[in-house]
Amino acid sequence: MDTSFAETLVKVIEWRRYFHQYPELSYQEIKTSSYVADQLRDMGWIVRIGVGGHGLIADLDGASPGKRIALRADMDALPIQDQKKVEYRSRISGVMHACGHDGHTSALMGAAALLVASRDDWSGSVRLIFQPAEEIPPGGAKAMIRDGALDGVDEIYGIHLWTPLPAGKIATTVGSMMAAADEFTIVIKGEGGHGGLPHQTVDSVTIGAHFVVNLQSVVSRNIDPVEPGVISVGSIHAGTAHNVIADECRLQGTIRTMTAEMRSYARKRIEEVLVATCNMFGAKYSIDFMLGYPPLVNHTKQVEHVIQIASDLYGAERVQICKPVMAAEDFAYYLEQLPGCFIFVGAGNESCSAPHHHPHFDIDESALEVSMRLLYKLATSR
Amino acid sequence: MDTSFAETLVKVIEWRRYFHQYPELSYQEIKTSSYVADQLRDMGWIVRIGVGGHGLIADLDGASPGKRIALRADMDALPIQDQKKVEYRSRISGVMHACGHDGHTSALMGAAALLVASRDDWSGSVRLIFQPAEEIPPGGAKAMIRDGALDGVDEIYGIHLWTPLPAGKIATTVGSMMAAADEFTIVIKGEGGHGGLPHQTVDSVTIGAHFVVNLQSVVSRNIDPVEPGVISVGSIHAGTAHNVIADECRLQGTIRTMTAEMRSYARKRIEEVLVATCNMFGAKYSIDFMLGYPPLVNHTKQVEHVIQIASDLYGAERVQICKPVMAAEDFAYYLEQLPGCFIFVGAGNESCSAPHHHPHFDIDESALEVSMRLLYKLATSR
Amino acid sequence: MDTSFAETLVKVIEWRRYFHQYPELSYQEIKTSSYVADQLRDMGWIVRIGVGGHGLIADLDGASPGKRIALRADMDALPIQDQKKVEYRSRISGVMHACGHDGHTSALMGAAALLVASRDDWSGSVRLIFQPAEEIPPGGAKAMIRDGALDGVDEIYGIHLWTPLPAGKIATTVGSMMAAADEFTIVIKGEGGHGGLPHQTVDSVTIGAHFVVNLQSVVSRNIDPVEPGVISVGSIHAGTAHNVIADECRLQGTIRTMTAEMRSYARKRIEEVLVATCNMFGAKYSIDFMLGYPPLVNHTKQVEHVIQIASDLYGAERVQICKPVMAAEDFAYYLEQLPGCFIFVGAGNESCSAPHHHPHFDIDESALEVSMRLLYKLATSR
Amino acid sequence: MDTSFAETLVKVIEWRRYFHQYPELSYQEIKTSSYVADQLRDMGWIVRIGVGGHGLIADLDGASPGKRIALRADMDALPIQDQKKVEYRSRISGVMHACGHDGHTSALMGAAALLVASRDDWSGSVRLIFQPAEEIPPGGAKAMIRDGALDGVDEIYGIHLWTPLPAGKIATTVGSMMAAADEFTIVIKGEGGHGGLPHQTVDSVTIGAHFVVNLQSVVSRNIDPVEPGVISVGSIHAGTAHNVIADECRLQGTIRTMTAEMRSYARKRIEEVLVATCNMFGAKYSIDFMLGYPPLVNHTKQVEHVIQIASDLYGAERVQICKPVMAAEDFAYYLEQLPGCFIFVGAGNESCSAPHHHPHFDIDESALEVSMRLLYKLATSR
Repeated sequence: MDTSFAETLVKVIEWRRYFHQYPELSYQEIKTSSYVADQLRDMGWIVRIGVGGHGLIADLDGASPGKRIALRADMDALPIQDQKKVEYRSRISGVMHACGHDGHTSALMGAAALLVASRDDWSGSVRLIFQPAEEIPPGGAKAMIRDGALDGVDEIYGIHLWTPLPAGKIATTVGSMMAAADEFTIVIKGEGGHGGLPHQTVDSVTIGAHFVVNLQSVVSRNIDPVEPGVISVGSIHAGTAHNVIADECRLQGTIRTMTAEMRSYARKRIEEVLVATCNMFGAKYSIDFMLGYPPLVNHTKQVEHVIQIASDLYGAERVQICKPVMAAEDFAYYLEQLPGCFIFVGAGNESCSAPHHHPHFDIDESALEVSMRLLYKLATSR
Repeated sequence: MDTSFAETLVKVIEWRRYFHQYPELSYQEIKTSSYVADQLRDMGWIVRIGVGGHGLIADLDGASPGKRIALRADMDALPIQDQKKVEYRSRISGVMHACGHDGHTSALMGAAALLVASRDDWSGSVRLIFQPAEEIPPGGAKAMIRDGALDGVDEIYGIHLWTPLPAGKIATTVGSMMAAADEFTIVIKGEGGHGGLPHQTVDSVTIGAHFVVNLQSVVSRNIDPVEPGVISVGSIHAGTAHNVIADECRLQGTIRTMTAEMRSYARKRIEEVLVATCNMFGAKYSIDFMLGYPPLVNHTKQVEHVIQIASDLYGAERVQICKPVMAAEDFAYYLEQLPGCFIFVGAGNESCSAPHHHPHFDIDESALEVSMRLLYKLATSR
Repeated sequence: MDTSFAETLVKVIEWRRYFHQYPELSYQEIKTSSYVADQLRDMGWIVRIGVGGHGLIADLDGASPGKRIALRADMDALPIQDQKKVEYRSRISGVMHACGHDGHTSALMGAAALLVASRDDWSGSVRLIFQPAEEIPPGGAKAMIRDGALDGVDEIYGIHLWTPLPAGKIATTVGSMMAAADEFTIVIKGEGGHGGLPHQTVDSVTIGAHFVVNLQSVVSRNIDPVEPGVISVGSIHAGTAHNVIADECRLQGTIRTMTAEMRSYARKRIEEVLVATCNMFGAKYSIDFMLGYPPLVNHTKQVEHVIQIASDLYGAERVQICKPVMAAEDFAYYLEQLPGCFIFVGAGNESCSAPHHHPHFDIDESALEVSMRLLYKLATSR
Repeated sequence: MDTSFAETLVKVIEWRRYFHQYPELSYQEIKTSSYVADQLRDMGWIVRIGVGGHGLIADLDGASPGKRIALRADMDALPIQDQKKVEYRSRISGVMHACGHDGHTSALMGAAALLVASRDDWSGSVRLIFQPAEEIPPGGAKAMIRDGALDGVDEIYGIHLWTPLPAGKIATTVGSMMAAADEFTIVIKGEGGHGGLPHQTVDSVTIGAHFVVNLQSVVSRNIDPVEPGVISVGSIHAGTAHNVIADECRLQGTIRTMTAEMRSYARKRIEEVLVATCNMFGAKYSIDFMLGYPPLVNHTKQVEHVIQIASDLYGAERVQICKPVMAAEDFAYYLEQLPGCFIFVGAGNESCSAPHHHPHFDIDESALEVSMRLLYKLATSR
């Protein structure tokens, strides 16, 4: 398998650079999906396309019956102009793989090749999930589940190339690992009037300001300090003139939580604070929540399995229990359905230090080897 | 004088309706000014035009030497679309005498006619001041003073038709009667970032909100409760997205104060609150103040004189000590130079109840008689 | 009357110094009252004692029938240790005439003497009201009214010696002149707990703090800026330990307003802000209001009468329209029943500059002459 | 070893009940310490008493040279009146083992017995640390380290019986597991005055309230959301009267953080918020921090070792990665010096559900077996 492994790795890097040059936006992953499907079919996988939009699933059975393990990659890119000075930079204006999904897809294709090559050595079956539209809720995962991507699957694993983590490291954690990211839009409706006669008005600027200040206490007083939670007001807009009291104040914000309970509790508290603040001043209000992805919660046994596999492959010193991160991932939906684990594969180095979603984002390509091998091992060790 | 008085009053109403139909915006009072100048010259006044822009002054001496009394009217209109259903409504699209300056000008022209007619009966001399641009700072008064409008004048009086006061009433007060109206523009400069990672940012929305809340204490704790003072934030704008911390928050507001001391103290406190709030969170800031008109402060003796004259004319029950109002007036500049008094002449009734600057604003024209007669008496009783 | 006047003035000063040396606390004015009664009876007044507690009223008719004018003085002292170095300083430990009531009482006795001496020269009748307990609500005025002190009275006047005003000056104003002073006591009932586990508690300290901050907006946004209004929280108490969340926060405060409408509106707003703040955080609360004296509101005609009389006596330049003051006076109750006016008589000079209720408080005794003469004139000019 | 093990377990329970009946307060553990020393000497341990106050250390070498492992127990009780209805309840009035230290001490004595009995089977050497005064900073650990308790030691382990965790479970975590608990005392120095004249004062109640509100933003905005952090104001005290502005506001609070960086950052931010709030209003201030124990930070390898050992003993399903807790422990000092791990041993059940420091606190004694065996295994498996 050594030759095969080295050759596969070369291909993985080629694939990754190809995808990097020809990125496709969320919900538009037509060519990427088609390319992946062709490659998998050539390898011998049974491929089903058009799953959850431009997604696809592929199946392969090992030497003997056993559990079916799913491995997932996401394929979509971001509406960002690539500003890197590398040969393989994006050739599509304003579109860029600035989150590493090109690497996820190619590493999983590499694992697919290894799985075919070693088919006689493993039992059970493997389901590959190449999903579209991870970047934009409602996201591809939900649609793929709806279209049967998890049917017959026993466990699921996925990786995320992660530049804040040095290349060579692997990290995961028990329980909550990534946040639910929900949004709110608020309109506070006061009564406008003369800036010199505030007593004849219901001053929406003052009410909006009190709301933002009051909101701080939800995180500082109401959320369990050992449960990461964030409520940020991203925008506030009211009024047009110096000397006119604004009749309406509009606010938008994001809510990050790590459990289903905290997720609904935070919304409840935000609304309570808004209602009380508006009642205090006699204003009316509206509030709308747009639910994003749920919290990504790993399953304990699968986390231990990952730690074991990764430690065996690379040594325990390269495997870490990480803190949860406040970003969201629609892999969370799979983990609501099945046991599984999501894994950060370190992809940062001195020249690859830009954060995700940055116009200079790039990965240390040695992370592709780790990703491919780890996915392969997770699929075949049970 | 009876016949003459009645005839003059008819003319005053005609003039007022003429001006009402052909309003001119601040700094554009060319036709109005020219019309007034022609009329005054016809009456026999010595007229000087082009004073303080489109302003004019006119002089007349009485039967014997004595003090020179100035009477002031303002001539400009507002950028408001007249929505009244009366014959004399504005014929200039988007321009309207929605503050009664048409009445001020015509009442003073009426007084001018009375003064000429009774020239043998009074001593001293009279200076008429028809000023432009009261509505928009820096205002016409300052420019007229610069051009010598107050030279040789001993006292000054002016009236404002006032719809919140019922027609028939006359009101004034000792000391501060109208507010200084200053403006501020603030930019709070934080550092933007990911909505889920507030600790890596300096959140300008939260800082802006704290500033607005902190600002309330200036009026509630720092300003003498018997000194009317208002600080209103008219607009707040920051951020464009739910999940991105805004790097900059912009606020605009108005400051209303009644004395020179409180005026500068309020600015000092606003800046102190801003500096401390920004320091608290590590933000930078800029603050700009745009000074409007100073507080309008009547002189005690002239107030008593007005009360006496008005009580003699109409009975004490029609004369009131009023509370100060939070609006501003550039008549304040004249009172910084000379003894004098500003007077509200009631102009409201059931059908004239719209507030000043409202598209349905109109006056009870009986107020023109009161205005004309009061100005005439103030010019001739010394 | 000249001789008589000078002799009376000497007596007034003697009386004042006598009262100053033997002050009596509110509701304990037994000797003072008895002394006043004896003197008035000696002069020829018909005296009724035991009115409204230790108060007394005295009546005298002039030469012919006419209106009955009431003049009021208050007699009680304060629980303050006199620290002045003057011969006539208080001989009663811990009790002091630190508000000038000694002067009010003696000046009114002086006026009483003048009234008797000039009885043939004036018409109508005069009612003297010497009331107890002005300093401590519910106050003597209410009790005296209940006991008939105002029966048959047409108008009422009273003076207050006023050290912030220079001796020689007389001041009053139309409408609201002194504040209603009401009190509130609030208990915010949260749930205590571990300082490290705030999410398991309802943190009464944080809620109390938010309440105080929110309260600032009542004055800054809800109260008409030209209506003086103050809400001050005088005390806040919660918790006993660093690391235990306090279950209860207690707050006390004072409300100063100038009209009956604003007085009840302020209470309404305070309660609304409390309810909303507690609802915001899930706390319970109690609020109690203790009503003090109502706002002191002068009647326009009587104010004009006072200004006229005072100007005639001392020249218009010594008479001022003053701003309202935020202290309270139970003279307010009389003015709720009858037309009248309350008057500040300037009593300050370089050596008498201590504020009222200060251990070094003293008056310029020339103010006694002004007080006596003004009261006399008000009683006899109608 | 079976017989020996069962017999030892019986003794452990006897010891625990003995200590439970005769608890000693922090810094007064004389009899407990002496009892432990006697027992250990009887077993054959080399005991050194008077270490770090009433602490003791004991040493034993195994069959061959190797690493020295330290095991730690704490011996002090709390000033709480035992309210349980069990035979072994405290016989010392007002003193109680309400935190399980009796169990820690007896379980470690049991492990000591097992170690002696199996001395030929293990290599290296073992150091037992019985420390005083864990409950009250500065705590016993610091003094024991100063007196050499860690000299020659390679690794250290300790357990805490934990009723929030069901008996049978074992929990620990990588990195921060228990909080630093620091305290602050603040005095805000304003200027008192008349409740109706706030503009003449610096109102310490309002400033204190703003400080508490502003403080909320430190946790909500400045502390990394995945780093548990709490700042609680436990007490606020200012003022004595309704109508007097308080000149001074005193506040106390606690700070809970999980890393050294966050610990000093939180203090820095608290002081910055205080300074800015006081500057905003022109107040002076003082702030004192009293540092408690540092954060308890487990070492990764030792955590993995514990998980391995515990899983081998009881099965992986009884071993958990736990969330950090906001309480503090002076075991943290040992972990600042050496690699090691602190472990929660589940001790709760239906009848043992009272929280730590509660007058009904009790443990499921089956936890003693787990504690003893786990400590024994950690000492002998290297």
